[in-house]
Amino acid sequence: MLNTAVAEQSSASAPEASETAQPRSRSTPEVLRVSIVGGSGYVGGELLRLAAGHPHLEVAQLTSERLAGRFAHTVHPNHRPSPGVGAHGPLKFQSIDDLEACDVLFLCLPHGRGSSHMGRFAELADTVIDCSADFRLRCPDAHRRWYGRDVDGPWRERFVYGLPELERDRLVGARLISGVGCNATAVNLALWPLAQAGWIDRVVVEVKVGSSEGGAQASAATHHPERSGAVRSFAPVGHRHQAEIHQQLGLDDDQLFFSATAIEAVRGVLATHHVFLNREVEDKDLWRLFRRAYGREPFVRIVNEKRGLYRLPEPKILAGTNFCDIGWRLDDHGRRLVVISALDNLVKGAAGSAIQALNVTRGFAETTGLEFAGLHPC
Amino acid sequence: MLNTAVAEQSSASAPEASETAQPRSRSTPEVLRVSIVGGSGYVGGELLRLAAGHPHLEVAQLTSERLAGRFAHTVHPNHRPSPGVGAHGPLKFQSIDDLEACDVLFLCLPHGRGSSHMGRFAELADTVIDCSADFRLRCPDAHRRWYGRDVDGPWRERFVYGLPELERDRLVGARLISGVGCNATAVNLALWPLAQAGWIDRVVVEVKVGSSEGGAQASAATHHPERSGAVRSFAPVGHRHQAEIHQQLGLDDDQLFFSATAIEAVRGVLATHHVFLNREVEDKDLWRLFRRAYGREPFVRIVNEKRGLYRLPEPKILAGTNFCDIGWRLDDHGRRLVVISALDNLVKGAAGSAIQALNVTRGFAETTGLEFAGLHPC
Amino acid sequence: MLNTAVAEQSSASAPEASETAQPRSRSTPEVLRVSIVGGSGYVGGELLRLAAGHPHLEVAQLTSERLAGRFAHTVHPNHRPSPGVGAHGPLKFQSIDDLEACDVLFLCLPHGRGSSHMGRFAELADTVIDCSADFRLRCPDAHRRWYGRDVDGPWRERFVYGLPELERDRLVGARLISGVGCNATAVNLALWPLAQAGWIDRVVVEVKVGSSEGGAQASAATHHPERSGAVRSFAPVGHRHQAEIHQQLGLDDDQLFFSATAIEAVRGVLATHHVFLNREVEDKDLWRLFRRAYGREPFVRIVNEKRGLYRLPEPKILAGTNFCDIGWRLDDHGRRLVVISALDNLVKGAAGSAIQALNVTRGFAETTGLEFAGLHPC
Amino acid sequence: MLNTAVAEQSSASAPEASETAQPRSRSTPEVLRVSIVGGSGYVGGELLRLAAGHPHLEVAQLTSERLAGRFAHTVHPNHRPSPGVGAHGPLKFQSIDDLEACDVLFLCLPHGRGSSHMGRFAELADTVIDCSADFRLRCPDAHRRWYGRDVDGPWRERFVYGLPELERDRLVGARLISGVGCNATAVNLALWPLAQAGWIDRVVVEVKVGSSEGGAQASAATHHPERSGAVRSFAPVGHRHQAEIHQQLGLDDDQLFFSATAIEAVRGVLATHHVFLNREVEDKDLWRLFRRAYGREPFVRIVNEKRGLYRLPEPKILAGTNFCDIGWRLDDHGRRLVVISALDNLVKGAAGSAIQALNVTRGFAETTGLEFAGLHPC
Repeated sequence: MLNTAVAEQSSASAPEASETAQPRSRSTPEVLRVSIVGGSGYVGGELLRLAAGHPHLEVAQLTSERLAGRFAHTVHPNHRPSPGVGAHGPLKFQSIDDLEACDVLFLCLPHGRGSSHMGRFAELADTVIDCSADFRLRCPDAHRRWYGRDVDGPWRERFVYGLPELERDRLVGARLISGVGCNATAVNLALWPLAQAGWIDRVVVEVKVGSSEGGAQASAATHHPERSGAVRSFAPVGHRHQAEIHQQLGLDDDQLFFSATAIEAVRGVLATHHVFLNREVEDKDLWRLFRRAYGREPFVRIVNEKRGLYRLPEPKILAGTNFCDIGWRLDDHGRRLVVISALDNLVKGAAGSAIQALNVTRGFAETTGLEFAGLHPC
Repeated sequence: MLNTAVAEQSSASAPEASETAQPRSRSTPEVLRVSIVGGSGYVGGELLRLAAGHPHLEVAQLTSERLAGRFAHTVHPNHRPSPGVGAHGPLKFQSIDDLEACDVLFLCLPHGRGSSHMGRFAELADTVIDCSADFRLRCPDAHRRWYGRDVDGPWRERFVYGLPELERDRLVGARLISGVGCNATAVNLALWPLAQAGWIDRVVVEVKVGSSEGGAQASAATHHPERSGAVRSFAPVGHRHQAEIHQQLGLDDDQLFFSATAIEAVRGVLATHHVFLNREVEDKDLWRLFRRAYGREPFVRIVNEKRGLYRLPEPKILAGTNFCDIGWRLDDHGRRLVVISALDNLVKGAAGSAIQALNVTRGFAETTGLEFAGLHPC
Repeated sequence: MLNTAVAEQSSASAPEASETAQPRSRSTPEVLRVSIVGGSGYVGGELLRLAAGHPHLEVAQLTSERLAGRFAHTVHPNHRPSPGVGAHGPLKFQSIDDLEACDVLFLCLPHGRGSSHMGRFAELADTVIDCSADFRLRCPDAHRRWYGRDVDGPWRERFVYGLPELERDRLVGARLISGVGCNATAVNLALWPLAQAGWIDRVVVEVKVGSSEGGAQASAATHHPERSGAVRSFAPVGHRHQAEIHQQLGLDDDQLFFSATAIEAVRGVLATHHVFLNREVEDKDLWRLFRRAYGREPFVRIVNEKRGLYRLPEPKILAGTNFCDIGWRLDDHGRRLVVISALDNLVKGAAGSAIQALNVTRGFAETTGLEFAGLHPC
Repeated sequence: MLNTAVAEQSSASAPEASETAQPRSRSTPEVLRVSIVGGSGYVGGELLRLAAGHPHLEVAQLTSERLAGRFAHTVHPNHRPSPGVGAHGPLKFQSIDDLEACDVLFLCLPHGRGSSHMGRFAELADTVIDCSADFRLRCPDAHRRWYGRDVDGPWRERFVYGLPELERDRLVGARLISGVGCNATAVNLALWPLAQAGWIDRVVVEVKVGSSEGGAQASAATHHPERSGAVRSFAPVGHRHQAEIHQQLGLDDDQLFFSATAIEAVRGVLATHHVFLNREVEDKDLWRLFRRAYGREPFVRIVNEKRGLYRLPEPKILAGTNFCDIGWRLDDHGRRLVVISALDNLVKGAAGSAIQALNVTRGFAETTGLEFAGLHPC
């Protein structure tokens, strides 16, 4: 629980003018102290993993009310220390009440939980990256429509959406960064070049997702005998991530149709976009468009081959990586273009984009700490 | 290999007038002798399983050139005999050259392999059910477009498409029956009431399918370390089953858009249909429409609940059954209706529909031999 | 909750003399009315499935306190009714307080929950089959050692262990039958011929098991992202099923060493027995021994081939069946014999053996309702 | 194919005296040029992945006769280049005939294929690491017994077994290094402290393994519908890796009993060791023993907890890492100790140990390039 006194105090401290990171009175340190609030979940675990391998980051604190006092590797077993690997020793969860000042604060609280304490968080750290959905939408009405409640007003407009490929310029020097939705990111990256070009008439998107999207909390629906092997249409309509797509691509309700199906997988998203174009295009037009958009992006690869096993993007080989792979096929009739994108929902769809955004805002090389290239076979 | 002499002889024997099953000179036997040509594959195995549990069928012969002389349970391990279960002892594969006259002949040969010998097959058995794609399409041009070659002409028009829910009347007494495509069946059953009603403006279909759809032949793409955990867009455009959907539903290229994705599963299809309707409908209109279409069908269930874990169709619990479950959700904007259907590609999508069609044509109770209700959990 | 009044009343009614089923005043009906207490779990679901397909059984009542008033197919989705398949309509859960007299009562309560109400249960039904562990062990000391508490005394000695292959004679006409442990059954059937022959010096058993062994209750350990793909040594020592093996095979602590590992599967047990023999044997001795033991058993198959893919038992193709497959390999040194057995933990390891035992005690053909031969591929 | 001329020539060049790496005429370069022979398989792919992330290694050549001229990422899709990640551009396979001099040569040829060309290989590179089984066994008789043929004699005694934890001293400066067997490594590391202490009377080992152990070649047995969900006792007796265990631990046929079971997994080994001890021990003795053995090892972790989900080693969270996790449980009777070990068969069981051995022999920090800590959840 958030200490009420602290909370009141912090909500009293109104957001100040400077949203760009002016490291108050101290110069950018070579190693930033990072704290992760709500660090017992899967996004918290990924942030821990990525921060631990990042030469300019050091994990200072990790909070969890439920697990305070226990080792991080109790729930993040890949963080178990070994005598020779990894610089630091075992890390313990602490209560959020014991949170100290640091350079970067990652918030991994459930939606709606952290937003009312943003004042306190912004005081504690120069950079705050909120991985919840609270500040992803710039428009308060959109937030109300999709999340069913208002979120503390004055902060909203100060957040920058943390997807570097689309918001790089605004991220440079930003102090308040919002994390991204995993499915939304698979769609936004796949469709952005087409949306920019103004070619989209209508698009039906279907994402296939693994069980880690649902988070670390067990429920009847995630009980292994029930979830294993499932092909479950859990969000045929009404998925909230549509809001982020609307915002980033400028598509509206009559253009974007979204469905999500849970499949047998732990990590990974495969998004299939059935794009009805408003003009005739040829394959070479698409190559030109996507190359122009992503030819120099470190984490967006065009995977669009005519032969071999891995001709089009597949999420399995992206587990743990920050890549979003994109490919396509043109239907031979009806102006349908099928665009395929794949990513790891916990990395490029969450923690990885957050670290990448941090690299941008702090001026580190954008790929720092995100070099893992993935496993095969797996 | 088909014996050339026999083959020539049989192609000489032109198809005769009577396509309705007039059991020549003998009355319908209480137990029909069934032979399965090309019985080493997965559809052959399912036919063997279903026929073995059918009180009016007895498996006479099972052919495979590669496995001639070996026991059926070498490749169909669930057919291994036990002292007390199952009426008959071990069954061996034989060469197609040793095929004898029987009551019912199931053809499970690769597409294009059996069609030129149809004369011989039609002489050997009163009822021929061809599970390949050779005679699914009534229109020769359509067959040429999608399968790239002509198939022995005069037989085509005599075949009846073996999906009882849509073709029951034509199946009564039919002698030549075509099997169905697995994905096509998931779509045809899901959309048929809407197509009949004339409500469909345009539909995007995406099927998620297991590895058994690819058949029993190993390849680099089916190697376990590569196929396991895959979410692979193997047919984003151009899938042949569209032809059967065109034919059965009267949809054309500008209305139907189809994609198929391989997922981690052995059996099962989940088809998600994004239907853009040409009118406003309410949920109760859909209930009325689907209930009228399927309220008395033994193998089509409406699964469309508001709570619980299994609210919408899921293929996992249909493994081994002849059910096709159908449900839907209306999008709150844009006239999109999402229809979900699920089935077991090897049963309702192949062998089960074939047995069901046989039941219809021979006047058995339609559910005979198809009573298996499925396993849960699994 | 059990109604206390009823409970007291029933514990007052001491067990009477007659343990053999003397259908009081009425002759054995052609169709027995069956009720399942604690019917929301996985064993309850399997009993429901098997009873629904059994020509001499009719499910009268299904109890669950949590789900009282809801349809059975809420949690047993394979029991969803269809217009044409299955004799009876939808079934609802009821409270155990509403339990009525019936012919056969299956108890699927958690261990220790039903035993104190045995008096009431024995009054309600001619035949009581308790699938919990409460009455599996004849020896009260053994029960106390492994389950940590005493169980209502006088009933224990009246129960017959419900594994027909080992206890067929005692089961004929029995009124009180205990279900079997799933892992114990895989071991007992595999080792029984060797134990009978007195050949076992020492045996190390390692079972590999699926997630359904843990039951239908979700927990942190069964959360899909954690359980999926796990190879988890959950009971390296101390597994309770050892007690049933001791009892049935006459092995003691110095002879039997047991470990259990959870693997990626929902159903199924593969038991690997490393048997150190007290004499030299040849392969043909083993064939003779196992054939003599199981040559006429309907549900125990010897699967012991030199070639093909399915040379030794595999649980995957046994899902839903009542088979226990057994095979072996002789090590070429050290007198080690490796015996492999496989079964479906929910069927032969629980509900199937219970139905089989019921068939024996009631004089039905032993395979009635248990004919399902399994699926392949799956 | 190996060029015969070259092969003859090279076998003419007898192995010289210096087996310790005396970088002839050139000083140790800061970056070593590495070539991988037989680089299309899974071990080759892992070496490529690890070398690409190793600051002191640069991949010079990758050979495959079948794929010569094609990009490495055709079969190693995780090696697909991206604009910003990874130092080097796309790499192509070449023929072994085009192999040039380099600093380190990894041989990933099938067993028996490379050994007769060792002369040529040893001429081409200062350090040769043969990942096949050809030179793992020091004793020619043992090799003949388990692999059924002799291998070119004079080279055998010059190879050092490449498991740093057991052979670190001999590896320093070694020029010819043998890779390790994956299952053997899980066993050797788990039992080594006990074997050193002389406590082992007899041990039964059962390994559970994923499908990548079988390599990259597709077969009927690896066809996804057959292999998926399998629990297959593929080597109940006679597994060759026993030879490496005999050699490294000094156990003989009457002490070591080994079985291997294939389970649903791509990567990973879980080895369960049922150790019958020749003395009474307490848990604290075991802690002392294992801590003394591995307390300072970077890649062997003691995982032996009383609570939490990951109490004992599990392979799933080790995918991609070079860890071997070890834990145990003492049976409360019979002097049985159950030791559990887990590793990734392609890393610690193959490519990772090879890189670690290279680090030792070349004097790099032993963990260089092997820092990946694993993913969770996955």
